[in-house]
Amino acid sequence: MARLRYKSFETHQAEIETKANLIQKRTSFRILRLAAVVALGFFSTHLVVANLASANEPLPETPPIPKDNPQTPQKIELGKQLYFDPRLSSTGTVSCNSCHNVMATGDDSVRTSAGVNGHRGDRNSPTVWNSAFWSVQFWDGRAPTLEEQAKGPLVNPIEMGLPNHNEAVKRVKAIAGYRTSFKRVFGGRDPITVDNIAKAIASYERTLITPDSAFDRYLKGEKTAISKDALEGYELAQNVGCFACHSGPHFAGPQLPTGTGFYMRFPTFSENDYVKTYELDKDLGRMKETKKEADKHMYRVPSWRNIAITAPYFHNGSVSKLDEAVRVMAKTQLNRDLKSSEVTKIVKFLESLTGQIPQQTMPQLPLMVGESLVN
Amino acid sequence: MARLRYKSFETHQAEIETKANLIQKRTSFRILRLAAVVALGFFSTHLVVANLASANEPLPETPPIPKDNPQTPQKIELGKQLYFDPRLSSTGTVSCNSCHNVMATGDDSVRTSAGVNGHRGDRNSPTVWNSAFWSVQFWDGRAPTLEEQAKGPLVNPIEMGLPNHNEAVKRVKAIAGYRTSFKRVFGGRDPITVDNIAKAIASYERTLITPDSAFDRYLKGEKTAISKDALEGYELAQNVGCFACHSGPHFAGPQLPTGTGFYMRFPTFSENDYVKTYELDKDLGRMKETKKEADKHMYRVPSWRNIAITAPYFHNGSVSKLDEAVRVMAKTQLNRDLKSSEVTKIVKFLESLTGQIPQQTMPQLPLMVGESLVN
Repeated sequence: MARLRYKSFETHQAEIETKANLIQKRTSFRILRLAAVVALGFFSTHLVVANLASANEPLPETPPIPKDNPQTPQKIELGKQLYFDPRLSSTGTVSCNSCHNVMATGDDSVRTSAGVNGHRGDRNSPTVWNSAFWSVQFWDGRAPTLEEQAKGPLVNPIEMGLPNHNEAVKRVKAIAGYRTSFKRVFGGRDPITVDNIAKAIASYERTLITPDSAFDRYLKGEKTAISKDALEGYELAQNVGCFACHSGPHFAGPQLPTGTGFYMRFPTFSENDYVKTYELDKDLGRMKETKKEADKHMYRVPSWRNIAITAPYFHNGSVSKLDEAVRVMAKTQLNRDLKSSEVTKIVKFLESLTGQIPQQTMPQLPLMVGESLVN
Repeated sequence: MARLRYKSFETHQAEIETKANLIQKRTSFRILRLAAVVALGFFSTHLVVANLASANEPLPETPPIPKDNPQTPQKIELGKQLYFDPRLSSTGTVSCNSCHNVMATGDDSVRTSAGVNGHRGDRNSPTVWNSAFWSVQFWDGRAPTLEEQAKGPLVNPIEMGLPNHNEAVKRVKAIAGYRTSFKRVFGGRDPITVDNIAKAIASYERTLITPDSAFDRYLKGEKTAISKDALEGYELAQNVGCFACHSGPHFAGPQLPTGTGFYMRFPTFSENDYVKTYELDKDLGRMKETKKEADKHMYRVPSWRNIAITAPYFHNGSVSKLDEAVRVMAKTQLNRDLKSSEVTKIVKFLESLTGQIPQQTMPQLPLMVGESLVN
């Protein structure tokens, strides 16, 4: 494994505070953020954005590792087995990998995912690639960590559909190979718990990093790694105002402590055809979770990393092409109508953010002898 | 790759004919086979069986390779990508691997598989492990080769659900990485055809062999590889009459030329509770395909290789445990009520037929940039 280059949360937080002089408390931060969005919509934003951006960092080699869930090779391998195990779904047919396919885009490349019995939800599956860097998980940030995220789909009736977490524990306990692995990885008298299942899966997910995008190589000094168009697109994205939200090494906003989300309203400008055509204001966003009016249409700012390979776009997967997604974002978030040539260049830049997907061995799932777990 | 140890079809066929003096024409063979089954039901069968068995061969290291589809590393890798690619299903959510999981049992360990939109069929998915050795594919043998088999699920409305094979071709053609690979592997002006898609998938499947089961190691001289119980179970399986059908290195009947199936009626004896409980005579078997009364309830004799890990059992997946499957088979095929100790020993023998699942790298699916194929 590469050496840990990631700064502590505290250092990061301190740096953000010093640099932008924005964050003193989360409340004042929220007010400022909203003010910034409004300002961005109406004024030239170059200077503000340049100050906020801090996008000129390559993707870190490793993500933050929580103190209570250190990485070990055995735990990662166990997590990989669990990640690929469809027996963790009610029907025995859906695994984490079904919707977050690590042989491809880290998601499922469809509008909304197919859970057990063909159920479809209303939100597009985010890619698992680099999700270990996000400070909150899900579109609405309702899980503070990968560990908490992993527990959600298991018991979501339209995803993996287990009746409760005890059922997950019961199933894992029924498989001899897992009993041995959990004992070895976690120790103790009763190591198979939903928390340990989630810890193992999260540990595996923390290995799912895609380094060495063309843009990263450009930042590291390989000046020919990206085209002139892509470079112009990078500058355009700044000038247009995209970096107000899509800043930082992940183009997902400032790096905040785990559990603290960087949220933005989408759509911000609703008086346009895109909102209607793509039903962008149908979903309540974070309000669905918090029930607070202030969270209406608020979403975690998604990363641009690998965005060119993770179509279709937005929380509802309603936009199938990247160029259209760029047009929609400029209009709905910045009230800008981009020229065709501008869209093309921004798309070229976004394409340069596709990283290298790591080569992996297939896990071998521990098998049952003489019977099956799900019938 | 291991050296080719498999005999030519002609040599094999000749050997079978000489050895058992049974096969002169397929018609006479069928009559004899039926006569044998009847005889087995009523008489002591030890001598007959010993003559038929020829089970004392380890699993061959490589399967037959058709002359018109030679194995190449590039073709195998391409086939692996296609095998894992859910974009070959109407919804973009079901791949070959969804129902024939090569990280596990080569099947899906559920009664009947989940196709697109949660559809369930009425037959249990056979394991892909060692299917390259079978002379016909599917429960009813309706495909003569792996190539022909691969084409079926693509356009089966309750499996991968494409409207037709042209749609598969169209989708593969839309993916740049596939265009390059097909050109390299197959050459020619228009290399992306459904036949070539099937050839690549079949080539990959011919690598899915599970050698070195405990029983194979026993046959090769490692006398302690299987337990005393398993050895007694092996003898019992012969004496009871199982080998009338489950003969040969695959315990799936005599090795016949590709396209020539070894079929048997199931259930043969219907006057027992098992048939009712497990609805064993509900499915018409091969008759569903051929419309011939003579094919009613006829099925390809399935292999015993890896049977202990491929529960649930039978064409309809109705029996969830191996010991029960043994009891059901003895009753429905040989009209025998086995003692509990006999069942236990036969199960121990069957467990010794679990081979080594090969370690594999994950394929990396060729990705689309800026758009998705399925919405």
